[in-house]
Amino acid sequence: MIAYASLLAFDRMAADAHLAPDLHRRAILCEMAAAEIANYRLIADRLSDRGADPAAAMLPFLDALSGYHEATDPTDWLEALTKAYIGDGMAGDFYRSIAAHLPATERDLVLRVLHQNPNEEFAVAEIRAAIAADPRVAGRLSMWARRLVGEALSQATRVVAEHGGMLALIGEADVGEEFFTRLKQAHGDRMAAVGLNN
Amino acid sequence: MIAYASLLAFDRMAADAHLAPDLHRRAILCEMAAAEIANYRLIADRLSDRGADPAAAMLPFLDALSGYHEATDPTDWLEALTKAYIGDGMAGDFYRSIAAHLPATERDLVLRVLHQNPNEEFAVAEIRAAIAADPRVAGRLSMWARRLVGEALSQATRVVAEHGGMLALIGEADVGEEFFTRLKQAHGDRMAAVGLNN
Repeated sequence: MIAYASLLAFDRMAADAHLAPDLHRRAILCEMAAAEIANYRLIADRLSDRGADPAAAMLPFLDALSGYHEATDPTDWLEALTKAYIGDGMAGDFYRSIAAHLPATERDLVLRVLHQNPNEEFAVAEIRAAIAADPRVAGRLSMWARRLVGEALSQATRVVAEHGGMLALIGEADVGEEFFTRLKQAHGDRMAAVGLNN
Repeated sequence: MIAYASLLAFDRMAADAHLAPDLHRRAILCEMAAAEIANYRLIADRLSDRGADPAAAMLPFLDALSGYHEATDPTDWLEALTKAYIGDGMAGDFYRSIAAHLPATERDLVLRVLHQNPNEEFAVAEIRAAIAADPRVAGRLSMWARRLVGEALSQATRVVAEHGGMLALIGEADVGEEFFTRLKQAHGDRMAAVGLNN
């Protein structure tokens, strides 16, 4: 799931780079995309080492992940950055919760991949600067972020429902109300950090 | 010029990755794109170190490079790979010829960047395999490659004509008939290597 998420994130960020107001910013989003494909390679190689075909392993998650991106196509630069920051942030929390229950070598790989998002600070700085320049931006981006969360939770619920194996990994006790409450809490902190309203 | 070429190559390869017949091949083209943006960063940082604004420095080459890509939009996977192999190969020869006249530190950077195309072998193998499976593919891709060359030479001529400074770098004696003859020769070798007709 993370492999395909990385492949798709590359694809979407590469396309969203066209929304950048200048070549400097465009290049930074391209580099964020490049980090995603490097993550893809790490996971795909691990899958191959374990005897799995990466393409086949990714297939069950194609619809949920594509569905999220199709429902959240940004129309401008700030929406694209907010998506990279808020959407990837939520996804990271989701994967991190699951990774906690994986064997050590797999868990370490997931955590390593999730930490390779060196340009998150860039997104945070851009969103903050835009809100400082025009406070009305906060309202618009807050609405956009709520839509991102709605779509992300909807697809996360779908993945959890469809994939019994993953449900077993998380553990029965973890996957209920409390699991999603924790995701929402972490998301709220992320929103507050850039001046968006949950 | 190489900085903007790398940024555009990232963009086009990332988009062309959609033409891949499977997720494995798609990921490889995404990785080829990622190598281009890494090259962009190396050159942009050098420009900044030298006190130049990368965006301003790239601007004069925007039309020629965009013009090439707009005139050579691949319609399928093999056209995309042929473009990556033949088009980037010609561009590499063009930049290498010019770099020979640069001061050592700049020349070394250009040569380093031009060598960072680790997946050229992949394109070669894919094109050869497609021709082996259906020899008629050679005719179609040969025609496509001739179009790539026509557009590339047309834009290269334009860049040379528009940029006196670069003309001076190459040296008066080098930029005439012989310069383009050498480019065409190297291109012919590249075509022959994958079974295409010049």
